[in-house]
Amino acid sequence: MATALELIRLAKGASLAVGLATSTQKNEALRQISLLLKARTDEIIAANALDVERGATDGLSQGLQDRLRLTEARIEALAAAVMEVVGLQDPIGDIVRGDTLPNGLKISEVRVPFGVIGAIYEARPNVTIDIASLAIKSGNAIVLRGGTAAENSNRVLVKLLQDGLLNAGLDPNAVQTVDDFGREGANEMMRAIGLIDVLIPRGGAGLIKAVIAESKVPVIQTGDGVVHVFIDESARVDWSVEIVLNSKTQRVSVCNTLETLLVHKNAAETVLPAVMQALKLKKVTIHGDESIVAAYPESLEATEDDWHAEYGSLDLAVKIVDSIDDALEHIAKYSTHHTESIVTDSQANAERFLAEVDSAVVVVNASTRFTDGGEFGFGAEVGISTQKLHARGPMGLRELTSTKWLVRGAGQVRS
Amino acid sequence: MATALELIRLAKGASLAVGLATSTQKNEALRQISLLLKARTDEIIAANALDVERGATDGLSQGLQDRLRLTEARIEALAAAVMEVVGLQDPIGDIVRGDTLPNGLKISEVRVPFGVIGAIYEARPNVTIDIASLAIKSGNAIVLRGGTAAENSNRVLVKLLQDGLLNAGLDPNAVQTVDDFGREGANEMMRAIGLIDVLIPRGGAGLIKAVIAESKVPVIQTGDGVVHVFIDESARVDWSVEIVLNSKTQRVSVCNTLETLLVHKNAAETVLPAVMQALKLKKVTIHGDESIVAAYPESLEATEDDWHAEYGSLDLAVKIVDSIDDALEHIAKYSTHHTESIVTDSQANAERFLAEVDSAVVVVNASTRFTDGGEFGFGAEVGISTQKLHARGPMGLRELTSTKWLVRGAGQVRS
Repeated sequence: MATALELIRLAKGASLAVGLATSTQKNEALRQISLLLKARTDEIIAANALDVERGATDGLSQGLQDRLRLTEARIEALAAAVMEVVGLQDPIGDIVRGDTLPNGLKISEVRVPFGVIGAIYEARPNVTIDIASLAIKSGNAIVLRGGTAAENSNRVLVKLLQDGLLNAGLDPNAVQTVDDFGREGANEMMRAIGLIDVLIPRGGAGLIKAVIAESKVPVIQTGDGVVHVFIDESARVDWSVEIVLNSKTQRVSVCNTLETLLVHKNAAETVLPAVMQALKLKKVTIHGDESIVAAYPESLEATEDDWHAEYGSLDLAVKIVDSIDDALEHIAKYSTHHTESIVTDSQANAERFLAEVDSAVVVVNASTRFTDGGEFGFGAEVGISTQKLHARGPMGLRELTSTKWLVRGAGQVRS
Repeated sequence: MATALELIRLAKGASLAVGLATSTQKNEALRQISLLLKARTDEIIAANALDVERGATDGLSQGLQDRLRLTEARIEALAAAVMEVVGLQDPIGDIVRGDTLPNGLKISEVRVPFGVIGAIYEARPNVTIDIASLAIKSGNAIVLRGGTAAENSNRVLVKLLQDGLLNAGLDPNAVQTVDDFGREGANEMMRAIGLIDVLIPRGGAGLIKAVIAESKVPVIQTGDGVVHVFIDESARVDWSVEIVLNSKTQRVSVCNTLETLLVHKNAAETVLPAVMQALKLKKVTIHGDESIVAAYPESLEATEDDWHAEYGSLDLAVKIVDSIDDALEHIAKYSTHHTESIVTDSQANAERFLAEVDSAVVVVNASTRFTDGGEFGFGAEVGISTQKLHARGPMGLRELTSTKWLVRGAGQVRS
């Protein structure tokens, strides 16, 4: 059996050809993958059943079991999502900058694939298809490490991805999994300097933190979101209610969901009551500071941990602040630099918030839930980058590319 | 005395204000720095003399002593270089992308500073001024680790940079040095997740490799260049001679200098003799493969190490290849992905070389020495990125920035 390193080398070896493939070839591979998903639905469900069964035996939570499960409807949705990637514009070959220098040299910076992308994620077999489709469309080879809990599902899905490539005349080695090597597979990926160009961890904060701390390969940090909304003193009541409610309750388990609400003290009696009433109807548990607990006795008392919490549930930390300065200071201290929103009627405060909040996405008078590749019009999303290098905010196909400079001369030398 | 971590925190604390400073303020700081360099020339030279003296005692090579030395002329050149940065366009605030979504949300991706840049480099005090000027212009705070060999020079220069900021009404804490903490200062920088946004090592391959392997903060890899020229069978003799000579001998110690020459076997008798003759006149030592040594007996026999060598001297590895395929294979194996050039009259081979060579800069019929921020029209250069994440090739001011998304709404929520 090949070692993890050998499999990574296979992906590297296939990366040149997939990088040079035309849009037509890459789209044909995606079409094949979409067809195979439908044709092999029974086989996928049978393999997935083994994972789900073991998950139940191992005491996996209901939520995790649900994320692990593939049904006919979910596989159909995956097949449709792959076809959506076919419809996206291929970024490879786009000219980013170009110039003719005074000496006649023509220089141009063109978009090229990274080469090999590594993805480390947890028990969500749908990610296997999602991220491989985006990698293929952007001309990259990919090495997957999808977690032991989904290994039977992933084995079938990786074979399917390879068959899709093969059916389209592309090198099937461009998709690899190191699932068979357990934790050592991930370790090998994190050491693969010169073979894997970028690692994208997707999953809980613990996984991402571990990859950032251990990887020697460049990492794109995604997805941790201690997201804030600040209700300024001039905030409209109706907007405040709708924005807080939507940001907190539209979908609680995702990274762009509101976790801490900051309220200007002058809005505490004019705006906050309606917001709290609406949250109560949605059964949101409030973790409030002293003055919140005094005014809303059903609230729990917030501890330091609450200001750092990414609840992923119907819980919300709420704090009264004296000024926009205090709000900005709190955000600077506790934010994970994902998304923050201000509700205000003050143009000056809106612009100050936009300028001073150091987050991937800064919002005025709208829900935090808009931080999303689909909402931004990217069509598909690899994740939300919360780091500053290479990509920030929703990552689409373009963010899976690098560039290179092409220089065309006629004998020029430097004097 | 403050600890290294406390100094890094000071830079972080100052980064917001320097990030929000106007171009006028930042340019004024640079003007002050330029003036202070001239006003304090004697003080700088005195401090530098201590470093040079110790370098001589410690047996530093003549080359390193020379790089360490600051003279009146060199300080004047530094002051002029700072004024050139004043003249560069400020990238901060530039709109990269923008859109109005169907729901009326206005989204725009704007260029913002990284926040805090870390620079780890070796005994070259001019880098202290160069990189701090570019950091200030791009709205970044900077933490410097310039090496013990230059610590007296750097102490004076860092104070000067801080005074320049102060004279312009900016927070002097935006420039910090951790030189006083020796190796531990660099270690603290490499651990400063959340405080330093990006680390840029500048120096020898050993330094860069160590920083990449050890840093938990994102790193931009710069400057290692095992650079190739391939003389194709259809190459013009005059271009081949001029391009090889310029690429190898115009300046031997820099990263875009030619290190390995590949020659198509069909050019070995038609093109190569003139090239070898020209190299001989320039006293270049040839490390050749078997057939080169047979034809040019004054050549040394190349070993495996020669194909990996970044000589930084008048040495050149030369190899005969059977085809462009062999040339591409050799480059894929030994290149450090900096710069490679083909000399050819074949349009097809030129385009194939451009497409298949996986390097930051790929050149047709021109010298490798053009890989340079100044030559590309960037005006100033932080280094040449040889990695694929964030920046590739010559890095100017723009490459010292990140972006963030601003979203302006009127009560929108997600449905």
